[in-house]
Amino acid sequence: MLERVNLKQIVTKEEYQPEADRLRHEISALQQTVKKAKLPVIVLFEGWGAAGKGSKIAKLILNLDPRGFAMYSMTRPTPEEQRYPFLKRYWEKIPQRGDFSIFDRSWYQELSVYALENDLSVKEIKKRASEIEVFERQLRDDGYLIVKFFLHISKKEQKKRLKELEADKHRSWRVTKQDWKQNDDYDRYYKAFDRMLEETSFEWAPWHVVPCEDRRTSMLSIYRTVVHEIQNALDAKAARDAKPPMPQDAPIVVSPKMHLVDVPKLQEVPLNQHVDEETYRKELDRLQKRLHHLAHRLYQEKIPVVIGYEGWDAAGKGGNIKRVAAALDPRDYQVLPIAAPDKGEFNRHYLWRFWKRLPKSGHIAIFDRTWYGRLMVERLEGLCTSDDWHRAYQEINEFEKELIDWGALVVKFWIQIDKDEQLRRFNDRANTPEKQWKLTDEDWRNREKWDLYEGAINDMLRYTSTDYAPWQIIESQDKRFARIKALTVLIREIENRLKD
Amino acid sequence: MLERVNLKQIVTKEEYQPEADRLRHEISALQQTVKKAKLPVIVLFEGWGAAGKGSKIAKLILNLDPRGFAMYSMTRPTPEEQRYPFLKRYWEKIPQRGDFSIFDRSWYQELSVYALENDLSVKEIKKRASEIEVFERQLRDDGYLIVKFFLHISKKEQKKRLKELEADKHRSWRVTKQDWKQNDDYDRYYKAFDRMLEETSFEWAPWHVVPCEDRRTSMLSIYRTVVHEIQNALDAKAARDAKPPMPQDAPIVVSPKMHLVDVPKLQEVPLNQHVDEETYRKELDRLQKRLHHLAHRLYQEKIPVVIGYEGWDAAGKGGNIKRVAAALDPRDYQVLPIAAPDKGEFNRHYLWRFWKRLPKSGHIAIFDRTWYGRLMVERLEGLCTSDDWHRAYQEINEFEKELIDWGALVVKFWIQIDKDEQLRRFNDRANTPEKQWKLTDEDWRNREKWDLYEGAINDMLRYTSTDYAPWQIIESQDKRFARIKALTVLIREIENRLKD
Repeated sequence: MLERVNLKQIVTKEEYQPEADRLRHEISALQQTVKKAKLPVIVLFEGWGAAGKGSKIAKLILNLDPRGFAMYSMTRPTPEEQRYPFLKRYWEKIPQRGDFSIFDRSWYQELSVYALENDLSVKEIKKRASEIEVFERQLRDDGYLIVKFFLHISKKEQKKRLKELEADKHRSWRVTKQDWKQNDDYDRYYKAFDRMLEETSFEWAPWHVVPCEDRRTSMLSIYRTVVHEIQNALDAKAARDAKPPMPQDAPIVVSPKMHLVDVPKLQEVPLNQHVDEETYRKELDRLQKRLHHLAHRLYQEKIPVVIGYEGWDAAGKGGNIKRVAAALDPRDYQVLPIAAPDKGEFNRHYLWRFWKRLPKSGHIAIFDRTWYGRLMVERLEGLCTSDDWHRAYQEINEFEKELIDWGALVVKFWIQIDKDEQLRRFNDRANTPEKQWKLTDEDWRNREKWDLYEGAINDMLRYTSTDYAPWQIIESQDKRFARIKALTVLIREIENRLKD
Repeated sequence: MLERVNLKQIVTKEEYQPEADRLRHEISALQQTVKKAKLPVIVLFEGWGAAGKGSKIAKLILNLDPRGFAMYSMTRPTPEEQRYPFLKRYWEKIPQRGDFSIFDRSWYQELSVYALENDLSVKEIKKRASEIEVFERQLRDDGYLIVKFFLHISKKEQKKRLKELEADKHRSWRVTKQDWKQNDDYDRYYKAFDRMLEETSFEWAPWHVVPCEDRRTSMLSIYRTVVHEIQNALDAKAARDAKPPMPQDAPIVVSPKMHLVDVPKLQEVPLNQHVDEETYRKELDRLQKRLHHLAHRLYQEKIPVVIGYEGWDAAGKGGNIKRVAAALDPRDYQVLPIAAPDKGEFNRHYLWRFWKRLPKSGHIAIFDRTWYGRLMVERLEGLCTSDDWHRAYQEINEFEKELIDWGALVVKFWIQIDKDEQLRRFNDRANTPEKQWKLTDEDWRNREKWDLYEGAINDMLRYTSTDYAPWQIIESQDKRFARIKALTVLIREIENRLKD
């Protein structure tokens, strides 16, 4: 892409001023429209050292109301950040609907500068590129606008600017060894940038290469692009909002690349298992000791573990989690109860709050309810559109695939009871003072929709049981059996992972 | 304190089991009461290496509903964390009302282990101790319960345990060089711990030293203390809630250690200044260049800057901030607009959201409205009690003192206009379509209370103009004058700070 850029363009001061004023006003006004339309906007800046990212971003953000944007200056990941998937720190920074996130350097450093510096393999670069594609597509599908700028200057111009900067005693410290290295190695970086731009200029989020040798040309180009992209996105949003939603019974589609494994339908799961008290005590003790030992090995090998619990109300998730947690060192695990999203969560992509809560390498996150809320309560209570939940099977499979590719073990439990057993447990809770807080009106309301939920859950089990993260059905009519089984499955999965 | 601890106590298994069961149930039940009473609880664990912190915390938290607590395992501060006041990462982790935060190691590491390792001066240790005292007192005054455990074992016992751990191939990696160093240097650590315990066993948050040579003795002691402290705190809360509030006109008191400087009353501030357009352009340009240069020097010298803007609605805060921001590199500053607190903010100490947003060393945070909301809107709208806002003058002076002691420059602007000018600007906003979004019904409501606000603001200016962070009055009847003055004051303050 870079060779098609004309670096010789010039705009005179007389041409610049009125046009720049007009565009700046337009951007100010558009920000209010963006807020009202609840359009989330990401603007990112990449480019050569000394191309002028800092001063261009400074000018751009002066036109924005600080209540509506955040600016992120991304540096190399800290050792702490390196213990998470590389996209986590970017996911965390996506804006709420109606706000802007502006990135001075972005996830594209991971594909270009860091990749060169760390001599990443082609395979690793390809993996990251495809994860970035998924990231941007998922955001776009959720209504995000992503505007990507690459600030371009020639080798000669870069050298000139670096020399000028170095000669200025107040600014010379801004010039780093890496800047000079980039200039010395300009051709190698050029190739890497060019390949990155070609490969990641998606139709829904194309690159805008800005010729930056003339400051006025580049600034106008940035202002115009921002205005143009926002207007387009607002139009596209209006068109989308006007379209009738996908029918609720449209077929569910996941990519054939995701290998699905068989799971039984809930109605077919036998629930007659039973474990007596004595066997339970003995087995529990043995399995917890084994899990304790395995958890240490996971910690030492820095393997992250994501455990998700889903199940009917009163199925016994809490007690089951407690038996797993009891075997673990509190420094190494966290139980993450997932309730209804708060405002900041609801106003972002639904996966945001889970990305934020991923465990670091060597740690265990136990989610008490998970991202699968999208396919159950959010689907059935109309908290997202039919398009949204139809898309979510694939999105969730992609999300879990990224966890696996990062090196995580992902274990998903469905805790199963039947409708009669739920009623018995609800009544027991209602009649036992210490347990009453566990039972809410919502539990009764959900119960009335048992059949609807069962249908949705069967869809969920069927379309998200991938070979890398299959659902594990835990029969919980007898809670003791369920606890023993969950521990046994977890141990088996850890052992398999440690064998790899 | 340590020499008074009897390490020889023993509890038999027969004594232990029923009592432990009873206490565990009580803790479970108390958690629900704590939630209802909205009591925020902090439990922290300090002590010798190999005293058993991990396993004791593991047992304690198994009795708690994960929806009501978070557990923090604190390690040495990362380089990133070292760029903030040392208490920031602890402030960030205080619980919401009704929740628990449990710390495996805490801010007391900063007074003991890190102090020894880094050979901190007595002066520095004293400074930290007094900041910790302020931290805990401010939390206590806001209704927080702080339970502090120190787990004690003898040198001999520690050695025995470290050897046992090392002999266990699955756990030997848990023993670090530092553990052995502590055992070799036991006497030195003993003295440091002992001094710390003596000096920080505040009446409102005493230390509980737990003899840990016998596991059952220590566990019972921890359970009992937790139950006892929570019950006491619930009683104290009920007593406090039943007491009539302090009268609104009770005198405002700040510690005489805070040296207050004179500021005029708002009614006495002359507002007849004027700057013509041409002088303004020239001066603005000159001052912004100067500020740009100084900001680079602050960055290089890693000095953090906290700028607070307060002022009447429509006084011109936004435009004033813009002229300051325009001189800065967007990588180095952030404008932080402060609106009404969200739920998570409202349910914590009011300073929490400001601690969270402090700039890191070398960076500039510009707060558009600040912690002074406590003394204006929160005072006048009854969003806190009379006791709360009476206490806040001192608390805010303490907060700002900590920023200064950390090395920050703190500049506070009051942007002043008179009542007639505000009316002109409101009407202008109401009549200009692009400006209408800036004017809300709340603005009109606040305007009706002008005189009340003026009284509260005069109190605020009088009692929080300390010699280390005095209020700067910016006359803004003429916005150009105000912008020039704010830049001039800011430059003067930075120059003074750089001279130090």
